[in-house]
Amino acid sequence: MSKSADRLRLDLLQGQRRLREQSSALIVVIGGVEGAGRHAVINTLTHLLDTRGLRVHAWTLDDAPGPDRPRFWRYWQALPSRGDGALFLNGWYAEPLTQALRGATPDLARETDFETLLRDDGALVLKFWLGVPLPQARRRIRQRLQQAQRPPLPSELAVLAAPDDAEACIDALTGIQGDWHFLDGCQPKDAATAALKVLRHAMEEHLAMDEHGAMDEHLADDGPKTRRARRHQSSTEARLAALPPPASTDKPALIAQLAELQTEFSKLLWAAQAAGRAGILVLEGWDAAGKGGVIRRVTGAVDARLFQVHPIAAPSDEERAHPWLWRFWRRLPRRGRMAIFDRSWYGRVLVERVEKLASRSQWQRAYDEIADFESQLTEEGVVLVKVWLHIQPQTQLERFQARAKTPHKHHKLTDEDWRNRERWDDYLAAAEDMFQHTDRPQAPWTLVAADDKRWARVQVLDALVQAYRRALS
Amino acid sequence: MSKSADRLRLDLLQGQRRLREQSSALIVVIGGVEGAGRHAVINTLTHLLDTRGLRVHAWTLDDAPGPDRPRFWRYWQALPSRGDGALFLNGWYAEPLTQALRGATPDLARETDFETLLRDDGALVLKFWLGVPLPQARRRIRQRLQQAQRPPLPSELAVLAAPDDAEACIDALTGIQGDWHFLDGCQPKDAATAALKVLRHAMEEHLAMDEHGAMDEHLADDGPKTRRARRHQSSTEARLAALPPPASTDKPALIAQLAELQTEFSKLLWAAQAAGRAGILVLEGWDAAGKGGVIRRVTGAVDARLFQVHPIAAPSDEERAHPWLWRFWRRLPRRGRMAIFDRSWYGRVLVERVEKLASRSQWQRAYDEIADFESQLTEEGVVLVKVWLHIQPQTQLERFQARAKTPHKHHKLTDEDWRNRERWDDYLAAAEDMFQHTDRPQAPWTLVAADDKRWARVQVLDALVQAYRRALS
Repeated sequence: MSKSADRLRLDLLQGQRRLREQSSALIVVIGGVEGAGRHAVINTLTHLLDTRGLRVHAWTLDDAPGPDRPRFWRYWQALPSRGDGALFLNGWYAEPLTQALRGATPDLARETDFETLLRDDGALVLKFWLGVPLPQARRRIRQRLQQAQRPPLPSELAVLAAPDDAEACIDALTGIQGDWHFLDGCQPKDAATAALKVLRHAMEEHLAMDEHGAMDEHLADDGPKTRRARRHQSSTEARLAALPPPASTDKPALIAQLAELQTEFSKLLWAAQAAGRAGILVLEGWDAAGKGGVIRRVTGAVDARLFQVHPIAAPSDEERAHPWLWRFWRRLPRRGRMAIFDRSWYGRVLVERVEKLASRSQWQRAYDEIADFESQLTEEGVVLVKVWLHIQPQTQLERFQARAKTPHKHHKLTDEDWRNRERWDDYLAAAEDMFQHTDRPQAPWTLVAADDKRWARVQVLDALVQAYRRALS
Repeated sequence: MSKSADRLRLDLLQGQRRLREQSSALIVVIGGVEGAGRHAVINTLTHLLDTRGLRVHAWTLDDAPGPDRPRFWRYWQALPSRGDGALFLNGWYAEPLTQALRGATPDLARETDFETLLRDDGALVLKFWLGVPLPQARRRIRQRLQQAQRPPLPSELAVLAAPDDAEACIDALTGIQGDWHFLDGCQPKDAATAALKVLRHAMEEHLAMDEHGAMDEHLADDGPKTRRARRHQSSTEARLAALPPPASTDKPALIAQLAELQTEFSKLLWAAQAAGRAGILVLEGWDAAGKGGVIRRVTGAVDARLFQVHPIAAPSDEERAHPWLWRFWRRLPRRGRMAIFDRSWYGRVLVERVEKLASRSQWQRAYDEIADFESQLTEEGVVLVKVWLHIQPQTQLERFQARAKTPHKHHKLTDEDWRNRERWDDYLAAAEDMFQHTDRPQAPWTLVAADDKRWARVQVLDALVQAYRRALS
């Protein structure tokens, strides 16, 4: 190895080590059509970099099953922990590239949002595009197929069969975002070396930024640095104060209504299963608002195969080492199934905000991140029902006292519950802000007066039945 | 609720809490054919138990995809953390039950082994069988289908179409193991109450055992308590001492050979992809034996989509909270893909034994647990290649010194490497025992003299090529 190559390698290894020390993920996309020489670049990178904690992710094989979940699910699953790295072969550009190869100009809003989120999380995201004229790519593919004596993959067929205007669409694809590093696919060796040098430079820049504190949000509560960090106005609305109390406390009538809705809901869930529609129920609300009781009524009449309940408590260390939404992505239901979140991603703008577990810019950014996340769900056809169970402070106090007195409810009352109660007003403000920023036509909030438990259960079942009916009609 | 029902509930909640405190998982199987009333029992259980940390797992829906991995993979994925609980609707008895419904008597060795492993890990495993005559099950299924206005599931069809002798086969299935609690499916309410009482009793017994220390292997190094814990004789063989040194150090010849094998291996991996065969390379050996270099040569010529490298270091907290093999199950490759384990499950009988991270009975048991695990892989058609890279102590010393001197290899040398070196003889004894107990015809060890790196790389590639050739012929 030449002296400058040695130096380069040493710098890269040092860069990796320092990224690890600073808990930054390294995320590299190697983009390009089949036959552009991406493998040569990847092999050079894995050869020279420290491969512990560096994974290569490649899909697009004919036998790779659809994720049965929103498109970005598999990319979220593949995200490295902070401090580790991942090389993506096209990654989330695989689908836009397929479109371009069919002669369509793709929209890259989702891709851009995803990268913004990763960068906001402190990751170094680096994108290389290996450009090669299509005729040359085709020659290489034919040669490769002949050598390996195998039929072409769908991604190879796409290049072989691409129309004349595909080249222009690929140019458009890589032109939209402006942060691609272009490599010459006709000279694979030079391309690999160029990529390494870009990587070294990017690492240095990233580390320098971090050292100057510009990236370090975990400590400082700094100002906005991306389009996401725009300040959201605090809410002046008071939707919870305006919520009418339970309209009925007629026990026999509510019990009958509940039973009817349960039967209806059970049928709808089977219909959703047959139609391959996933569903999500988000349950938020005050301590002792009756979430557990609601969940038992929702699931009580339903086949156990059709749903999964996810109580959301403190994240595990694996979850802490990923962007905060990762632990919700990994719990998304498959098509035809339902997930019930007993507390949810809204903890980011509720408890994490109030208890200062997230910095101001982190929880402010979360409103947009949640909007992106939920629109990925609803665009995929997920039936999304978000419920806030609301009770008056007095109701909560009575329920806490009842819990303290009832032996089999003892375990449900903790010191934390009393502490949270003292911060009622802070949580109220956070909740109002949350409704203002995350109540959208495709993902509306259902606010339920839960001072009467039976009334509340009927309301939640009713919201579910209506949402599923709409979705399946 | 009656007074005794209140008492029962309180006892169950206390039992759950104490199981959590003692880090025991609660694993309940509710078995029975479709129409036996399993859902009524599950609903009663989830209604009365604390559902935080208690998940219900049910498959057998028509749209549930095959796991594309060995059969038990999905059950491993679904295992609760220690201290949490899971209810399985048939669980790993789904497949044996399907067989019985076809009139065949299933063998339950795998199922028994799995439960032994869970119990050895401190779990309370409880199995209920809901018995109901097939004609009554059929009546219930028909009624249910009519109510829900849906076509029958495959599992329902199996009951509707079962031959006359199926009933006897089901009896045989539940008779083999002797640890089923039988419930009367004709009386679902009584069955549920009976299940709760059995659960209470089992919890008390389990907790009492634990308190008397009989279960507590994490602290004490107690004697064998299951068939797995039989003492394995220490090896008197010296396979490593008898290993001939590298037969050639002819650099140009080895380089040429390697290139040839790489080409061949790349073709074989594509063929395995087409045939849907998964592969696993396990790499063990001394520090500085050259594992990293081997991996780069194995992967260097191969399409990045076809494999994944898993460096095995300390487990995460999620991994620590599960039976020790869990972290390897979760990394198993899909059909048509390959996984390379840079260190592996053999750490249990190497580093964990030598450094006393596992108790004697734990690592002794591991020989059988590994045998079970690997035979599940090979029976599923996984191409399993296990390699030990062997070097002489002198070679290691030279390589350590070279690493200390070479700037870009600095990071590969840690204090731990020097410490491990001091325990060479302990590791040697552990390795010899490992070969003796885990070298089986279906999962043989390949011992490679790695004092010459090029020779070693050729040997590993050769072992892979041969194994894949055999598998695909």
